[in-house]
Amino acid sequence: MEFKNLDSCTSFAKLRNQEPCSVKDMLTKERIQAFSILEGGGLTYNYAAMPVTEATIQTLQELSNEQQLIEKYIALLNGETMNTGENRLVLHQLTRGQILNPVFADNEDKGKFYQGQLEKIKEFSSKVRKGEITGSTGKPFSTVVQIGIGGSDLGPRALYLALKGSQDEKQLAAKFISNVDPDDAADVISGLDFETTLFILVSKSGTTLETLTNRDLVIEAIKASGIKGIDPSRHIVAVTSKTSPLASSDTVLDAFFIDDYIGGRYSSTSAVGGVLLSLAFGYETFAELLQGAHEADKMALENDITKNAALMDALIGVYLRNVLALPTTAILPYSQGLNRFPAHLQQVDMESNGKHVNRSGEKVSYATGPVIFGESGTNGQHSFYQLLHQGTDTVALQFIGFSESQYGKDIVVEGSTSQKKLNANLAAQIVAFARGKDDKNPNKQFEGNRYSSLLTARTLNARTLGALLAHYENKVMFQGFAWNLNSFDQEGVQLGKILAKKVLEGCKDDPILKAYADLL
Amino acid sequence: MEFKNLDSCTSFAKLRNQEPCSVKDMLTKERIQAFSILEGGGLTYNYAAMPVTEATIQTLQELSNEQQLIEKYIALLNGETMNTGENRLVLHQLTRGQILNPVFADNEDKGKFYQGQLEKIKEFSSKVRKGEITGSTGKPFSTVVQIGIGGSDLGPRALYLALKGSQDEKQLAAKFISNVDPDDAADVISGLDFETTLFILVSKSGTTLETLTNRDLVIEAIKASGIKGIDPSRHIVAVTSKTSPLASSDTVLDAFFIDDYIGGRYSSTSAVGGVLLSLAFGYETFAELLQGAHEADKMALENDITKNAALMDALIGVYLRNVLALPTTAILPYSQGLNRFPAHLQQVDMESNGKHVNRSGEKVSYATGPVIFGESGTNGQHSFYQLLHQGTDTVALQFIGFSESQYGKDIVVEGSTSQKKLNANLAAQIVAFARGKDDKNPNKQFEGNRYSSLLTARTLNARTLGALLAHYENKVMFQGFAWNLNSFDQEGVQLGKILAKKVLEGCKDDPILKAYADLL
Repeated sequence: MEFKNLDSCTSFAKLRNQEPCSVKDMLTKERIQAFSILEGGGLTYNYAAMPVTEATIQTLQELSNEQQLIEKYIALLNGETMNTGENRLVLHQLTRGQILNPVFADNEDKGKFYQGQLEKIKEFSSKVRKGEITGSTGKPFSTVVQIGIGGSDLGPRALYLALKGSQDEKQLAAKFISNVDPDDAADVISGLDFETTLFILVSKSGTTLETLTNRDLVIEAIKASGIKGIDPSRHIVAVTSKTSPLASSDTVLDAFFIDDYIGGRYSSTSAVGGVLLSLAFGYETFAELLQGAHEADKMALENDITKNAALMDALIGVYLRNVLALPTTAILPYSQGLNRFPAHLQQVDMESNGKHVNRSGEKVSYATGPVIFGESGTNGQHSFYQLLHQGTDTVALQFIGFSESQYGKDIVVEGSTSQKKLNANLAAQIVAFARGKDDKNPNKQFEGNRYSSLLTARTLNARTLGALLAHYENKVMFQGFAWNLNSFDQEGVQLGKILAKKVLEGCKDDPILKAYADLL
Repeated sequence: MEFKNLDSCTSFAKLRNQEPCSVKDMLTKERIQAFSILEGGGLTYNYAAMPVTEATIQTLQELSNEQQLIEKYIALLNGETMNTGENRLVLHQLTRGQILNPVFADNEDKGKFYQGQLEKIKEFSSKVRKGEITGSTGKPFSTVVQIGIGGSDLGPRALYLALKGSQDEKQLAAKFISNVDPDDAADVISGLDFETTLFILVSKSGTTLETLTNRDLVIEAIKASGIKGIDPSRHIVAVTSKTSPLASSDTVLDAFFIDDYIGGRYSSTSAVGGVLLSLAFGYETFAELLQGAHEADKMALENDITKNAALMDALIGVYLRNVLALPTTAILPYSQGLNRFPAHLQQVDMESNGKHVNRSGEKVSYATGPVIFGESGTNGQHSFYQLLHQGTDTVALQFIGFSESQYGKDIVVEGSTSQKKLNANLAAQIVAFARGKDDKNPNKQFEGNRYSSLLTARTLNARTLGALLAHYENKVMFQGFAWNLNSFDQEGVQLGKILAKKVLEGCKDDPILKAYADLL
């Protein structure tokens, strides 16, 4: 394998020299039908409204070949040390419960290790849901609270909210405490019945200050509740690494393990998401999510970019970023269940590829990861879409939509259901952005040629959600390879931590830091 | 008054010719202390970490003078037709309940009209909270549900969440249904006790399809509940215009009025936010919010930009956007209560200034409103801050912080409270972004010179929240004046509406639209 910068690729030079096309006049019925790729897991990716011609696609294929994107993905699956900075393997695809390639490390079969944790999650969650494991006062658990921050929070939270509406069977309610801001914990705690609540403490190292602080806040509150005979340690399980102080602590009911090869933002399909989702919805639901993700992982092995949705999405993204120079991407899911999915993707994408050095530590001279933002539609239409339609900058758009609603509780008003109206809006937006509209009044003029893609499935359920998650994880991975980055470390978060510690120690010899601390 | 484009200002030409400065080496204790402006309402704006020198500030003052920003604000307060496209006055500052300048329109004193609505809200909310007005089965109301979209949703929701933790007294719980996605309503409805729930239906025209559909969904659900004697019409109040079909409808318990001079995104301090907030927290709390907003409105009249926080923030924003060419601004509140405030500001800012034509309808040749995004800290630190620190693009940063927490439920871990840790992180981030850090390992190198401002108050309460809201409303207004835009219309949302209607009618003669509709 060869690792080289994007701007040293002959295919990239070729791409830059091609005449950009406009989607304004390019859309046809045939193109819309043809420019679709099955993602696996019931998901389809459509890129008809992206500014690519057959020539662009051919050159993107050459770029994929030249940067050896599939080879690099296979190397990652085979357990090569793709997180070079931290000298670690990258194994989140292996947590889906199905093995593409066996990996041995740290004297164990890593696939078996993750599968062993899945077995444990299956058994534990089943017992809790059946009432065989209860709270310390004998009552069955009815609520789970995840205490974690960053990847231990955003992904599991987004997935929980996405599935809450799709499940008919018994659900345990899930809540989340993440912020070091004490108001976050206070707000969640104020609504809890401790006797029936199980806390999931998530920290790989077992030393994350925010998370341990919030655990202590929770334990204090349980003790202060005055409930007779309640024992906090029997209301907490840990998700951590085998070697962390939490792993063998007698202050928790049980512990589930992850390892250093699962980055926080890629940990939703490991025990970090698995314990919560299995408790809330049952293990079978979590297993379906893993199945959907695994199907997408398999599709991502395809060399032909017109058959590999994550790869095509990644390469078009590189084209938008490095040839058309777009700084931002909006994620626009037309499904209320996905209302926190953009926040999760913000982390997956911006923390992975928001880098200014390549994997060898040399500064790159091209743009890397874009800013990611988004809200669910049609809400966004009544908010920031004004800028997307008529602002002076072009924003890359990624729509997500489903034929059916989740709850299935709908109503016909003026001849159509709400779900029909929702999807009518989605189709209308794609066309409005692409085609624009001429008007004699420039204020009512839409220039069009605003690019979007669309990910669709019949309905948002565990399997399609798993595929959606893996689609974006794999997209970001391929872009990282194309940009020659290490997408799996996050050195940019360290400096703030060091300075925060300095503030708490009194800002010794740092009058500037002290002046800011004094403002608050 | 003269209305001219930014790029025809001599002060703007001067600004562009000045040598940009770096905040990296410019921060001193003295600068941090000096570069602060009282906003009113207990709020302070600090811009020490923004890339401005005394010379920049002087030129920004000249730009303010040349573009007559204060004169234009006064004209707006005086009731001139500042929303030129829709031929409307812009009177949201007049809804604060205190009159800066009297305005007569539509044969009435508009200040008195808004005050009259406030009186009505005061009386109604008091009776509901005392149990003098009850549900149709005789039970007191304990929950309010706002049904509205866009400005009828985002602002009131953000303000409700921001105050939930600051109130010791009796609260009514508030929930929100906004999306036309039927899952949104289904999720909220599934947790309601209809007998004790009061719905607030918000639609200025009384014809917003999403909102009326969700009302019908709610009425169906109430009827289907089989609760004996329940009468939906006695569980719904309307916030609408006097002339709307809802105003005199016998299907609602009561109606509160707004008018065409209050744009949706600026309606939080009118009845649109007032009914909800007064019911949830009591009218006195809402009145404090109005007071804070009014104080900030008064400060915004100051000609000297070093004494006018909203104006300074606006002008620095123009400098960042049009001289330094930054496409995005992140709003980063270090307070969990403000977790939906960035979503509200997304609408306020991007819908107001995401325009490509000036107020006369001519295309402008400079960048206007930026993309706005953000999440609360420290959560964001564990997510997208990697890109903010080490990505290839610079993002303008706006921090918000408070000395004290809201709930006051805190814990000392490793020698400090959570609130101390939260604020230590905030101070640390500002300094880390500005100063950066050299390191032999380029992956641990922080270039610094990443700009931020800070809005602070002692605590997040109704008064400081009102000032914060008005700060941003006024900032956006001043920027719109500087860019010579009409910040008060939103033509960019129309095309999508027209095409969505076409989809629902079967996409006649539009095979492209039909091809997209068929994908879903």
